[in-house]
Formats: sequence, C-alpha cells, structure tokens
Amino acid sequence: MDGQTGGFTLPGESGYEDLTLELAKKWGADVIRDSDGTRLSPQILNAGYDIYATLCIIRDHNEWARQHPHTQQQIFLITNPITATGDTVDIPLMERYFQEQFSINASPEAMAFWQVYDRTAGVPVPEANWAYNPNTRTVTVRGVTPWRRYTVSFLAFRVWEEINMYNHTTNHWTSEHLTQLDPRHPEVQEYLLAWLDNWCGEHQQVDVVRFTSLFYNFAFIWGGDQRNKILFSDWASYDNTVSPLALMQFKEETGYSLTAEDFVNKGNFQVTHWPPTAQKRDYMAFIHAFVASFGKKLVDVVHRHGKKAYVFYDDSWVGMEPYGERFSQIGFDGLIKCVFSGFEARLCAHVPVETHELRLHPYLFPVGLSGAPTFMPGGNPTQDAKKYWISVRRALLRAPVQRIGLGGYLHLTRDFPDFCDYIEALANEFREIKALHEGGEPYTLPVHVAVLHAMGSLRSWSLSGHFHETDKHDLIHINEALSGLPVKVSFLSFEDVKAGALQDVQAVINAGAAGTAWSGGEEWGDSRVTEALTRWVHEGGTFIGVNEPSALPGGDTYLRMAHVLGVDLDTGEKVCHGRWAYDVAPQAGLPAGDAHPARKENLYLTDGNARVLAEDNGVPVLTVNAFGKGKGIYLTSFRQDPKAARFLQNLLLYAANLDGGQFYITDNPYTECAYYPATGKLAAINMSGDAQTSRVLTPGGLLEIPLAPYGLATRQVK
Amino acid sequence: MDGQTGGFTLPGESGYEDLTLELAKKWGADVIRDSDGTRLSPQILNAGYDIYATLCIIRDHNEWARQHPHTQQQIFLITNPITATGDTVDIPLMERYFQEQFSINASPEAMAFWQVYDRTAGVPVPEANWAYNPNTRTVTVRGVTPWRRYTVSFLAFRVWEEINMYNHTTNHWTSEHLTQLDPRHPEVQEYLLAWLDNWCGEHQQVDVVRFTSLFYNFAFIWGGDQRNKILFSDWASYDNTVSPLALMQFKEETGYSLTAEDFVNKGNFQVTHWPPTAQKRDYMAFIHAFVASFGKKLVDVVHRHGKKAYVFYDDSWVGMEPYGERFSQIGFDGLIKCVFSGFEARLCAHVPVETHELRLHPYLFPVGLSGAPTFMPGGNPTQDAKKYWISVRRALLRAPVQRIGLGGYLHLTRDFPDFCDYIEALANEFREIKALHEGGEPYTLPVHVAVLHAMGSLRSWSLSGHFHETDKHDLIHINEALSGLPVKVSFLSFEDVKAGALQDVQAVINAGAAGTAWSGGEEWGDSRVTEALTRWVHEGGTFIGVNEPSALPGGDTYLRMAHVLGVDLDTGEKVCHGRWAYDVAPQAGLPAGDAHPARKENLYLTDGNARVLAEDNGVPVLTVNAFGKGKGIYLTSFRQDPKAARFLQNLLLYAANLDGGQFYITDNPYTECAYYPATGKLAAINMSGDAQTSRVLTPGGLLEIPLAPYGLATRQVK
Repeated sequence: MDGQTGGFTLPGESGYEDLTLELAKKWGADVIRDSDGTRLSPQILNAGYDIYATLCIIRDHNEWARQHPHTQQQIFLITNPITATGDTVDIPLMERYFQEQFSINASPEAMAFWQVYDRTAGVPVPEANWAYNPNTRTVTVRGVTPWRRYTVSFLAFRVWEEINMYNHTTNHWTSEHLTQLDPRHPEVQEYLLAWLDNWCGEHQQVDVVRFTSLFYNFAFIWGGDQRNKILFSDWASYDNTVSPLALMQFKEETGYSLTAEDFVNKGNFQVTHWPPTAQKRDYMAFIHAFVASFGKKLVDVVHRHGKKAYVFYDDSWVGMEPYGERFSQIGFDGLIKCVFSGFEARLCAHVPVETHELRLHPYLFPVGLSGAPTFMPGGNPTQDAKKYWISVRRALLRAPVQRIGLGGYLHLTRDFPDFCDYIEALANEFREIKALHEGGEPYTLPVHVAVLHAMGSLRSWSLSGHFHETDKHDLIHINEALSGLPVKVSFLSFEDVKAGALQDVQAVINAGAAGTAWSGGEEWGDSRVTEALTRWVHEGGTFIGVNEPSALPGGDTYLRMAHVLGVDLDTGEKVCHGRWAYDVAPQAGLPAGDAHPARKENLYLTDGNARVLAEDNGVPVLTVNAFGKGKGIYLTSFRQDPKAARFLQNLLLYAANLDGGQFYITDNPYTECAYYPATGKLAAINMSGDAQTSRVLTPGGLLEIPLAPYGLATRQVK
Repeated sequence: MDGQTGGFTLPGESGYEDLTLELAKKWGADVIRDSDGTRLSPQILNAGYDIYATLCIIRDHNEWARQHPHTQQQIFLITNPITATGDTVDIPLMERYFQEQFSINASPEAMAFWQVYDRTAGVPVPEANWAYNPNTRTVTVRGVTPWRRYTVSFLAFRVWEEINMYNHTTNHWTSEHLTQLDPRHPEVQEYLLAWLDNWCGEHQQVDVVRFTSLFYNFAFIWGGDQRNKILFSDWASYDNTVSPLALMQFKEETGYSLTAEDFVNKGNFQVTHWPPTAQKRDYMAFIHAFVASFGKKLVDVVHRHGKKAYVFYDDSWVGMEPYGERFSQIGFDGLIKCVFSGFEARLCAHVPVETHELRLHPYLFPVGLSGAPTFMPGGNPTQDAKKYWISVRRALLRAPVQRIGLGGYLHLTRDFPDFCDYIEALANEFREIKALHEGGEPYTLPVHVAVLHAMGSLRSWSLSGHFHETDKHDLIHINEALSGLPVKVSFLSFEDVKAGALQDVQAVINAGAAGTAWSGGEEWGDSRVTEALTRWVHEGGTFIGVNEPSALPGGDTYLRMAHVLGVDLDTGEKVCHGRWAYDVAPQAGLPAGDAHPARKENLYLTDGNARVLAEDNGVPVLTVNAFGKGKGIYLTSFRQDPKAARFLQNLLLYAANLDGGQFYITDNPYTECAYYPATGKLAAINMSGDAQTSRVLTPGGLLEIPLAPYGLATRQVK
C-alpha cells in the first residue's frame, strides 16, 4: 500500500456498500470491521479488504443460559443499613437496586457466603441469628442491639449484561435483555470453545476476531430510583467476577477464604482509586490467572482457524490486565484501545502485542457517551475528532502505534462531509507519524521519571477509565501531560521502591489525595519505603509531591515525606503552632500558575528551610527543599493543558538539574516536537487553533518551524 | 449607692489622683484597682473607695528563685527530627528554641524522663543507645537505622515568665527578666504562704486581693528564629505544669507513669482543640487537685486578713478550671474575666462565685493585643469599646454579672473625651441591665440545647482563649450566637450522653472539624454514644451537625451520625458511587446564607431521603432528615453575626417543632430582647449602627419598640 493507504480500520455497514467502499478509499483503509448493531454484506466482505469481526464471547447465548441459569455471572450486593428500634430487624434486600439487573442467589452454596453485619460495631452477626424469607426477599435478624444499624451482604445473579442494559435503556430498545455467562463454570467453557470453533468455521472471510473484550465487565450497579440511577460504577473493579465456585477455588489455591465483606467493604466496594487490600491483590491475581488461562484456549481456537485474535481493551476487560504478568500468555495478536487522550495511546502502545490499534472518537453514533449530540443536528463531530486527535497525537510522537480506526454506523457520516475530509487528513497525518518511528525510537531528554502509586506498572498510564471519568485526580492530569513529553516514564509500585527500582531514576512523582491508590495511603506505613526514598533523594534524586503525597495519619507528620519536602499538611493538630514567614523566590521556567495549583489552607513549612517558589494569598503552592544532594518539590495540584505540560517538562528538567537550553525541545508551550535520531527527522506539532512558530535548538543551530493551526511539520535535522 | 453608681472597677493611677477621682465619679465607680505597671497613692487609697490589688503570686520572687533554682517552672520540649545518614546521629537540643526562655534541665531526676524517639518507626530508642553532652547541648544516638528520623524530648526550666517576656520584648524593656516559681515544691509553698501573709499585713487598705491568676501559664513556646517567633501557643494546654516532682507524685496517685511522649505528642503537644487522651484527662485532674488545694491555702491567708480573694481568669489559669469539680473548694469570692465577646460573659456569669466581674476591652494601653493603635494617634478606643460592648451586652441580658471594670493606664484616656463619655453611658447601661436581673431570671423559649464536645461542661462556652484566637472553629461562632439567645444552653461531654443527660434536651449541636475536641474525634468510636443519640432522636430529639460532626474514620460512614443526618462526607472511597439528585425545598425562617455556610465538595446524600433546604452550586449546604419522631439537621459551617444568630434561633425553634410565633422574641434580626417575668420588664437592644424598630409578641399584644443605633430600651409588659 502507498503512503496514503494502510493502518486504518473502517466500520463497514451493510446496505451502504457504495459508501463503505468510497470512504475506505478516501481514508486509506486496509481493514473493514463490523460494529455493535452493524453487519457486513458479501459485497463488502469480498472487496479485497481484511475483515475484523466483533465478538462479545460471554453474551448472545440467552437460550443456553436459560437452560443453565446457575452459570450466569454474579456479584455481591449490600443493603442500606437499617437502624434497629427493637430486638428484631427486617432488612429487605432489593430495595435500593434495579430489579431488572439482579436476581438474588439464595442457593445453599451462595447463602454460605451471605453475611449480616452490625455496622455500628463493625462485626458480623452469627448465622444462627438471622433467616432469609424468599417470598418477601427479606432477612430477619433476631437478638439485635437496639439503635445499632444492620446490613445484609448477599450474592445476586446479574441477569442483564451491562452494556446491553445501558444501550437498551438509553435507546428505549424493546429487544430481549441479553444475559451473560460466567466461564468459570466448566460447562460454560466447554460450550464456548465449541461455539467459537463453530463460529470460526462459519466465518471464513473473517481475518481477525476482535474480542470485545473477554469475560467480566467493570462494575456497573444500577439503582431502583431514577434520582440515583447508577449506584456504583468502577471501570477497574473486580466485583463482577465472583461466584461461589470462584470463592471455593480461591480457597483451594490460596488456603484461605474470602468473605462477602472483602467485596462489599462496608458498602464502599473495593474502589479502584483506593489501595487494594492484601486479599484483593490475591483475588486479582487469581482472576487474572483464570482469564489468561481460558482466554488462551479461545485464542488457540481462533489461531487454529488461521485467523488472528485481537482484543478491544474496554468493557469486559476485568482480569485481562494488559500489564499483568500473564497477559502475554493469552496470545493476542493485537490490542485495540478506544482513545480520547494521550495517556490512552501510551497505554495501548506499550502493551506486549504485535499490533496496537486506536479506536478513535467520536464513535459514529447520533450521541456521544455523555449524551451530547454528535452525528445529528447540534453535533460537531469534526470538532470532537480534532480535540481528541490533538490530545492523542502528541503521545503518538513518543510511542509507535500501528493502526487507527473508527466504529459505529458509517451512514451517519453522510451529512458531515467536513468530518469525512478531516478523517482523511487525520489518517494521512497518522501514517506520517507512524513512518517516523520506523527508523527507531525518538530522542528523550536525560530524565527518567517514575510515577509512584499503589498499583505500579500494572496500571501504567491509566487510573481507571477515561480522562473525563477521573479528572478530579491530579495523577490523570500528570499522566496526560507526561504522555507527550520527551522523557522516559516508568510506573512504580511501593514494592518496586523497596526492591531497589529507584536506581536509574531522576525524579519520582507521587500525586493524589490522601488515602487513595495514587497517593499511596497505607503503603506509606512501611518505613522501608520512606527509608529507600529518603536515601535516594539524599544521594541526588528529586521527589515531587502533588496534593497530599505520602499522606498517612499516625506519624509525626501527615506527609510521610515531609522531611524531604520541607512542607506538611495540618490535619488540625498543628492549629496552635506558629507558621514560618517566607519570601517568595520564583524559579525561571516554573510559573506555578500554569499548573493551576489549588490553594491548600492547611499547608505549612515544617522547619522553614523550604524555598517558596509561588504562593496563593499567604499559603505556598509550589516549594522546593534541598535535601542532601537531591531535593523535594511540592505542588498543591496539577491540571493539564499545554502550558501545564510545559511547566511539568521544566519541573522535570529542574529536578534533574538540567537547564532549559536542551536540544530538541520547543520554546513555545503550544508546540512540541520529537526528534528521531536514526533518520535525523524532527516533527513539530501545534496544539493550538492559532498559527504558531516553534523554535528548536539542535547541535546544528536553531530550527524555526512555522506551524499552521493544529498543524504538524517535519524537518530533516542532519 | 444610687442607680448611677456601683458595680464599676476603675484602674487608678498614682500621679493622676485628680483624674482618678474625677473619672471614678463620672463612671460611677465603687472600686479602684491597680494594674500591671501602675500603683495607687495614699490619696487614692484613702478616697473612700474599695481597693483591689493585683497579685501574680508565682512571679516577682527573683532573689528567692536564684537561691532555689530547681524550683523554677519547667516544660517538656522536643527537637526537630534529624534524618540519620549513617549509624550515628547528633541532635542539638536548643536549635529551634528561644535561648532566653529555656534552660535545659539535665539533672539525673529530670533526665530519667528524657526520651529519644525513632520518629520513622514511632518507637523510643533504648536509653543505653544515647548520651547527652552538656557542653555542646547535644544528644548523640548510636546504632540508629540510616534514613530514619530521630528526636529528643527533654525537660527545660522556663527561666522567663511568659507574660513578662511578652511585655518586655514587645516594649523593649531593659529590666531584669522575671522568673516564676513552681508551687509544687513544698519549700515554695512554705515561702509563698509566708510571703502572702506578710503582704496582706502590709496592705491594710486593700479590700480585695486580685490574683492574676494562680500558678501555671498557658503554653507559650518561643522559637529562636524571627521568621517563626511563636512556635506554640495554646491557652488551655497543661504543658507548663510539669516537673520531675509532679511526675513522681502523679505516679504515686494514679499507679502509672507518664512519659515525655505524653506531653510532646510527636511534636504536636497536647493541643486543646484535640480530644484529650485518657492520660491527659488523668493529668488534668491531678493538676486541678493540686491547684485547688494550694489555691485554697492562699485564699485562706487572704480571708484571715479580712480581705476578699478574687481571681482574674486569664494568663496563669491552668489547672484552675472554673467549671472543674474542685474549683469551689478554692474559696474565691469573685471571678474577673476579660471579655471581647458574649460567650466570655456567659463563661464568667455561671462560675460558682459570689461576684462576677467583666474586665472590658480595650485595655488602657497605647496598643491592643494585636498591636493595632488604641490610646494613641490612629486609635479609636470608643469604637473598640462599643464593638465589644455590643457583643457582650446581649449575653448580659441572659445571665447576671455583678460588676464591670477597666484596666491599664488611666491617664491615657485624657486625650479621648468621647471614650470617657461612652464609658459613662456604658456603665449606666450596665447598671440598668444588672437591675433587670434582680427580680429573677429572664424568660427562655421552651428549648433546651446541648452543645456536645469532648470537654463537656468543663469547657462551657469557651474553646480556648478569645474569639479571634479560635475563629476558624465553627463552635466558637455557635457559642457566641447562643450566648445571647433566649434558650437554655448546656455543654455535654460524651460521658454525659452515655449517662443519660439527653433526657430533657430538645436539640444537640455537634460542630467542628473531624478529629477535633469539638467534633469529638475518637469519642465517636464508642457505640454507646451513637446508640444513645440515635434513640433520643428517634424518640423526638433533633441532632444538629455542623461541618464534620461525628466524623471518625473506620466506620461504614465517615459521619457516625450519617444515618440520622441523611448526609455523609466522602473521604475518597465513595468516588465511584452515584450521587442523589434532589430538589431544593427551602424552609421558612431558615435562609442558610445567613449562617454563611461553606461549600463542601465531598458532601453527599446517603439514601436520598434527606430534604435539601439550601445548596451551593450542586452541593447541599443545609439539610434536614426525618428520623423516627425526631430529625437530623446538617449545616456545612456557621459564622456568627446578627443574622446568623437569628438563623440559629430559628433553627432551634424548628428543631423543637415550634413555630416563629413565639412570645418575647423580636421580628428584626438586628434587635433582640429579654423578658423578666418576675417584674414584667422587657429589654430590647439594637445591635446595629442604624435606628431599628423591634416588634415583640406578648400575651397582651404586639409591642413596637423603636431603638436608637446600638440602643437599649425597656418596657413594662404587665
């Protein structure tokens, strides 16, 4: 294929064969795929393109599920607490929940895992004291302590597959509710392997089976009240993987039992933004092992039919963990990631598979995820596509991705010719960027930055879900900024730090609210962590703390790295202590305002030695503290945009004791560049809607590169 | 004395005899006192007035202290943590401290209480591993773990009495530093009793000995660096009461030992705004017993000389605790409280002594406490006096006080004739209010409100120090509002609640930041507290929570009363949970804006049943939740002013299920009134600088009372 063709996956649509082939040509597609709700006709299948077929393996088996209802997927639910006003309390189980999503599992093997809790005392109630009445779907608890509160945790089947439930409800469909099978059951495994083998045999024209995704959806618990429709939504939780069988097998493998409380966790569930308990870590490993093992069996079937197996990394991804240690064992040939942001492109790019593909937004649907119009009157899909592409593109300069594509109803593009033109230009720009990587890796500054959080490399780049779902967390802003910066980025866990992973790192970033997985929470209770970091800083490293880094109650300081940062946060016990007066001493290249730091009223200087680089009405927002040969830098918060990304780049240079006069970086925060030493090519991009000039220092002198709005330009440096 | 004379204490000044007697007449004084820095001449002493003499009993004994240096007062200090970079660490003791305030006590009996701590691990270092070098004033610790942090806690003599240190330093005095004796030592007791006996004999014309105050100053720890001059200042801490002798006697009395850590508390000290540990409670009781016991001996001396003993409740008040169970045993005839605010007037008024006196502000000094000009060019003492009086006056309508007075250099008033006129009017107004109480107590609404915090009645009305020192705490604003409201007010501890003290209470207020003594912190970990409150609300009570009421980590809700309030605060674990949509349903008489509620981003409705009375940009700020026959009311914060006080009054009426059509309350928030049933008199006051009209419903009809700016008017109701 020539330079204007290839690396593009087009969603074909039966009934719109001419449009499909016309746009395939315009956009340089080499692959045509189907989508949820679309099918490909013979005319498309035979047009000479490679074909992807989308498969949600655990769904669309309603008839079989009806015959094997116990093999449906399950979840632990918890009632609202009920206050006892006497010595007996009745607790209705389903009151808060969406009745169409759940069906109580009151089988003996399930009820063995139910728990009644005295939430006031925080202890379970003995089984002998309570009984379940299936007619009223109520648990009655006897011998309770009046004025305490009681809950029931119970198992329920999830009788409506969540993605179908969402689309069905949103679009007022009247079709049958789709159910979902749990492949934990041997009979399901046997059935699905045979089914897939049969399906592959019946779909000879399919080149790539595109799994969407594997078995277990992220948690999506709906409520019975329209005023609070979505009770719980966590893109990375493991709640949907549970069953009595899984719990029994867990006990066999680990030697200990999990309880309902390990899942419902006082009603909080095991939220991804919180550090996992030891039990949750074991359970995640247990699920990952199963998903990898049965996933491999499915992929083997696909391979036996001479097809490739790609996986779409969204929806039912739980347990697949693309940075998990067993992911490679599954044997996927490619991973497809839907992207709004740069960090998602990096997340995709580094997964150990042969082919990395980005499913761009907007999806070809009338409305977007948030319900706003897209391909309908009032929508502006071109603007949407451009916004996402500008975020994604800077990450693509840093790490290669082989393919891009779209999804949805192709016919919706007919009313948006400017969108079709924009995608043509975008696809060509993508191919230009892809070609840049073919000579070798881009140059990075001599800065290795490690992001330190409770999940480490297992959750490289991503927190949980998309940017707009996690944008209250500083770290997603930092990850997004880092995704396009010319530095080496690693993601470390606290175990990594203890094991010596700081050796070749110049800067560690720990960013987030107290207690969260991102700040680290109880991980900071292990003194080996602070000892390793303290030593590393003393010997020259830079610890960058954002928001409530290393925060953990119980120490003499709230921030366990306060001695390195020179600042701490008062939780109320320092209210009678004096505060250090200071002069503000700004640092060139670090206008803190660019990072949009929030005012933190309770911030104070510990021993007065930290230098205040910026303040907000009498409270520091950016400080640096010399510590041995290294330093601690504190920033109250970080919110991403082009100037903030440039601020972070300069902060990292400052952390690594490098000045701003480095080669191959631009002087203009609205522009960035990447230099590819093997070919001597340099690409500059403009992230703004205005024309910009980008100046880049090279060993051969200053390059001055004019850039059109949102433009990309390349130069030969040597 | 006639209606225009009496109940007024004037500060006389030697050398200004004519002015003294002239103003005594103008202001209707019946008592003349001396002040810090003034003395009374025979002409004044013999003018027919009662005479107060100020006495700081533990000070002004420098010569005796020089001969008995070990009897000076002491304190536990703690160094900054030092990070070990090898296996030995040197810790200089005095680096952070003001060298003129402290002298290390390295005697064997003191060093037995010193501690070296590994702050990283939170454990003490064995004594065998460290040694003190008195020449370098440094502790060397051997066998440490590199990269951990170490502190030394040690005893020091406080060789400069803090009030003298403050005045000396502020006014650049050159006089000898005054020291202070610790009456814990038997030889000091013997000396002081003899000294006081002698003093009383030599001062026959003194009618009242005005103790300022007793033995132990509040903690006031100064730093060695001008950038952080006051390291720690806590008006109610017990840090200054300690000594090896006290610690040994404590062990004898209680059977267990306190350690340095019980005082320095990781460097936080035992801040008053935090709930006391069990050890601190024992220690407070121990000190209170001693202060009461030796205080009584001093008062007995005064009484033997036919004089009265009053105590000025400020400065060296620690251990005196006017609401402590042993206070009455001391035998004081009167208590004098310096006041800026209404809550301080109530604090004074309810102490079990015969005479209650308010020392009004401003003090007759050139500058005020904050350093702003008062009786000098640029000052406006009349405006200051009026501001404080308007705050105090409303409290005086609710509870009787027998006397008011001033202090300082009388001659400074000469340049401020309007001040002299204003004090004349103020004194007459005071006498008018005093007379109102003579027939009996004022009418209160049928509302009994209990303020619930960790200190209960021991800290009735006050948190710690003056309003402006504690104004970040919601509760001081609430106490100030309550001080002038026509309701019954109690202060309950958590022990009181468990013991059944809620019986005749309509509303409980719990207000403050998480963890503080005012919110309650760990007191909420005792389920008997929530059970008692839950039952009481269910049976009809109203629990009013402000800011982070009942907050304690570790439960299934952060607010332990969330089930009653219907709201909770997300600490980060509910970030994936849905939020309830709501409609705002305002309640008549409760415009939340009047209470100045802060936006709390992390507030959420627990089960959707709470009614939202007001919100701020999508987050509720005032809610009410029906619970049994009672209710829970939540307010994000409270800041006092006349409209906020009216809001609180209406909130309490609402809590008690009373409508706004009550007798003897005004319709205008800038005015308040008090009705005295025994005499049928009603007094109305105007708290604003504008003329107001106040309408008051009585059984005989509506009273309409015009009020001059800041005016007071009385009416005969029956």
